[in-house]
Amino acid sequence: MEPESCLEKSSGGRFSAKAAEERLPVLVSAVLPAGGTGERMGGGTPKQFCPILGRPLISYTVQALERINWISHIVVVVSLDNVEIMKSIVKRYGHKRSVIVEGGTSRHRSIFNGLEIFVKNSPIQKPEVVIIHDAVRPFVEKDIIFKVVMAAKEHGAAGAIRPLVSTVIASSADGCLDHSLDRAKYRASEMPQAFLFDVIHQAYRQCNDYDLDYGTECLHLALKYSKTNAKLIEGPPDLWKVTYKKDLYAAESLIREAISQQVCVITDMNENAVQVGFLLHKTLKSHVKQVRSLSSTLCKDDNHLQNILLGQCYNFICINDTPSDFQKTQQLVEMLENTNASVLYSIVLISVHLNNLEDTSCSSEMPKLVELAKEVNKTNIFLYGLIIHYQQDNMKLEEITDSASALIMALIRDRNPAFVGQLLVA
Amino acid sequence: MEPESCLEKSSGGRFSAKAAEERLPVLVSAVLPAGGTGERMGGGTPKQFCPILGRPLISYTVQALERINWISHIVVVVSLDNVEIMKSIVKRYGHKRSVIVEGGTSRHRSIFNGLEIFVKNSPIQKPEVVIIHDAVRPFVEKDIIFKVVMAAKEHGAAGAIRPLVSTVIASSADGCLDHSLDRAKYRASEMPQAFLFDVIHQAYRQCNDYDLDYGTECLHLALKYSKTNAKLIEGPPDLWKVTYKKDLYAAESLIREAISQQVCVITDMNENAVQVGFLLHKTLKSHVKQVRSLSSTLCKDDNHLQNILLGQCYNFICINDTPSDFQKTQQLVEMLENTNASVLYSIVLISVHLNNLEDTSCSSEMPKLVELAKEVNKTNIFLYGLIIHYQQDNMKLEEITDSASALIMALIRDRNPAFVGQLLVA
Repeated sequence: MEPESCLEKSSGGRFSAKAAEERLPVLVSAVLPAGGTGERMGGGTPKQFCPILGRPLISYTVQALERINWISHIVVVVSLDNVEIMKSIVKRYGHKRSVIVEGGTSRHRSIFNGLEIFVKNSPIQKPEVVIIHDAVRPFVEKDIIFKVVMAAKEHGAAGAIRPLVSTVIASSADGCLDHSLDRAKYRASEMPQAFLFDVIHQAYRQCNDYDLDYGTECLHLALKYSKTNAKLIEGPPDLWKVTYKKDLYAAESLIREAISQQVCVITDMNENAVQVGFLLHKTLKSHVKQVRSLSSTLCKDDNHLQNILLGQCYNFICINDTPSDFQKTQQLVEMLENTNASVLYSIVLISVHLNNLEDTSCSSEMPKLVELAKEVNKTNIFLYGLIIHYQQDNMKLEEITDSASALIMALIRDRNPAFVGQLLVA
Repeated sequence: MEPESCLEKSSGGRFSAKAAEERLPVLVSAVLPAGGTGERMGGGTPKQFCPILGRPLISYTVQALERINWISHIVVVVSLDNVEIMKSIVKRYGHKRSVIVEGGTSRHRSIFNGLEIFVKNSPIQKPEVVIIHDAVRPFVEKDIIFKVVMAAKEHGAAGAIRPLVSTVIASSADGCLDHSLDRAKYRASEMPQAFLFDVIHQAYRQCNDYDLDYGTECLHLALKYSKTNAKLIEGPPDLWKVTYKKDLYAAESLIREAISQQVCVITDMNENAVQVGFLLHKTLKSHVKQVRSLSSTLCKDDNHLQNILLGQCYNFICINDTPSDFQKTQQLVEMLENTNASVLYSIVLISVHLNNLEDTSCSSEMPKLVELAKEVNKTNIFLYGLIIHYQQDNMKLEEITDSASALIMALIRDRNPAFVGQLLVA
C-alpha cells in the first residue's frame, strides 16, 4: 500500500490512469466536504487543516484530485470561519481548479451547498457526473476514482466499499449484546462516491431536515429519493480516513516514505568526487526505488535536471570537492529555487564534502553551511552537510560510503527541519 | 489519546488503576491469540511480530497486560512456526508472567487452545474470569480492562465496543446497495473482552467446526452456546488494532511521543554547566511533561537517579564542562547499563559539551564520542553529542540554549540510531 496518490503514479498506475483519461467520455467535477470541526481530534484545529510535513491535510487531498486532468472543478466546502484559511491554502499551493464554497451546519448541508454552485447562475458548468470525496482521505488513487465515475455514469450512483475490520453488533436496551452481524454480508461504505449530477442533486432537493441534519450516507439519499441503487466497488486500503491523531502520524509517515523513493546524486567533475558519487549511487540503490546521477556542470537550462525535477524527485545529494567548496551546492540551490520545486514538498539537499585530511576539523565550512541552510530554509529546502573522509584504499572508502549512505537515508526519511545546517561526519 | 498503556500510567490513570487493583476480588488471567499470518500487511512478517522501535509489537501488548498486577497469567497463542520466536521475545524482554501455547488453524481454534491450558493438567490455575485480547492492540488501558473484567464477573461476558467509523451497508446479489444500517443502532465490537471462564470454555467445547473455522466473535459464541448476553462497554479510541502498514507507523509515532515526555538533565558541578543546565531545564519544560534536574555527583546508589529511572525516564542530557570531558556522560552510561533501564525502550543520551572558544573545531572529542556511542549502542542506549558555545552575555546564551533545546527535542523524538555518535552544534 503506497501513498502515491499524493505523488505522480509509478509506471504501472500511470499507464492504467492514462488509459482511463483517454477513455473518459463525460464531464466530471468533484465536491469535497471539509466543514468538519474535528472534535474527534480533541478539538483544536479541524483535522482537514492539520499540517502534515508543514502542509495542511486538505491540500494533499485536493492535489490527489487535481492530478486527474479530467476532473474540471474541485468544489471545496468549508465552514465560514475557514474560508480565508482555505483561500490562502489554495493560493500558496497553487490549487488552480478548486472553488471554495461556504458550508452548512451538517455534512449533508455542506455537500448540498457544494452541488448548488453548479446550478446557481455561476460560471461553473454543471457536470454530468459529480464525485463526492472526503477532505481527510488524501491517499485516494486515480484508478478507484475512475472506476467509481464510470459505474456512476452507468448506474446513476456508485461508491467505494471496504471489508469490515471489526464485527458489527447490535445492543439491546440494557446495553447488552443483542446480535452480531455476519461480517461476510456487510461492507463499510467509504469514499469516493460518484453520481449522475441530477440523481444526487434531486435527492438533496427532496430530502427532509432530518436527513440533512443527521444523515451521513449519500448513497442512502440517492436510493431513498432518486430510487437509484448505487453500484458498490471494492476499493483499496488506501481509502482510509484521517480520523484521530494517530492517523495524522500514519499519513505523515506514508508521505515521508513516498517522497523518499527518488534520489538524485550530483557530483563535481573532480575524479575523487566522481568515484564517491559512483559508490553512493550503488549503495543508495538498495534503499530507494530510483537513484539518478548527474556529473555534468549544472546550468539553468539543464534538461537532465529539469526532467528529474518533473519526475518529482525531492532528494538531492551534491558532492563537492573540498570541505570549503560549496559551488555545486550553491548552483543547485539556485536552480531549485528558480523551478519552485519545493512548493508542495520540502526538498532535502545534502551537501557532501570530501575531506582528504586525517583530522575532522569542521571549523572552516561550518559557518558557511549554517548561513546557506538558514537562507534556503525559507524556500522549503532543507540543507544538511556531510563530511566524507576520502580514502585511497577502496575497501575503506566503500565502508565509509556505506555509513554515509545510512546517514543520507536517515536525513531523507526524517526531513527534520531541526537538523538543518548541521554537519554530520561519515 | 495517549499511548501510555505501554508505559506506567500518568497520575490520574495510576490512581484509578490502583483503586481497581485494591477492589479486585477475583482470579484473572488473559489469553492473547497471536496466530495470525498478517496477510493484510502484504505477507512477510505477521504483524504481531513486526518491530516497533526495534521491539516486536506483541511485546508491547504483553507489557500492557503485565503492568496490571492482578492478571496472573498471560497465555500467548502462536502458530507452531513462531513458538521459538515468541520464546526468545519472552526471554529478551522479561515477560515473566506469559505462557506460550501453540495455536490452531483459525482464530477461534487458537483461543480454544489457549483456554484448554487452564484445564488440562497444567500447573496454571484456572481463573474465574479470563480476558481475551488481541496481540495487535498494544494501547489497551488498565481502566477499560478493569471495567470489562468486572462486567464479565457480573454478567458472565463483556466486551469493549466503539462507535462505527463508516456507515455499514448490505449489498444485493448484483453488487449494488441494498440498504445501509443506521449508525446509531450499531457498534463495532473491539477487544478486550472478558468472560467467566466456564461460560466461554463451555461455549468453545460445544461449538461446531464451522464456528471454529469461520467465526470471529467470541461474544457471539457465548450468546449462542452459553446463553450469555455480553455486557457492552464503550471503550476509548486507544483500542485500535494494528492492521495495515500505516498502523505500524502510527503505533511507532505514538510510542515515540509517549517516551519523549520525560527528560532528565544532569549537570557537572561547574558553574557554567549549572547555568546552562538551568536554562535548558527552563526551555525543555515547554516541550515535555516533566523535566528533572540533577547536579549531584553521580554514584551507583544515587537515589534521585534510581527514582528517575523507576519513573520510566528514557531521555538524559548530560552537561559536561569542556568539549573533551566525557566524565559525567561515562558515569551515567555505567549506571544506565547497571540498571538495565534500556531493555524495553532505547534510551536517548545527549552528551552536551560547553565550548568557550570561538571556533567550532570538533576534532578533539569526535573520535572519543564515536567510540563511546558505538559501545553503548549495543545496550540500546543512543548517544549523541551536542556542542553549546558558552556565552557570557545572558541574552546570547539564552538564544543558544533555545536552539540547543530544539536539537535536543528533535534527537529525543526521533530516537534515530543512524545519527548515533554524531556531534551537533547549537
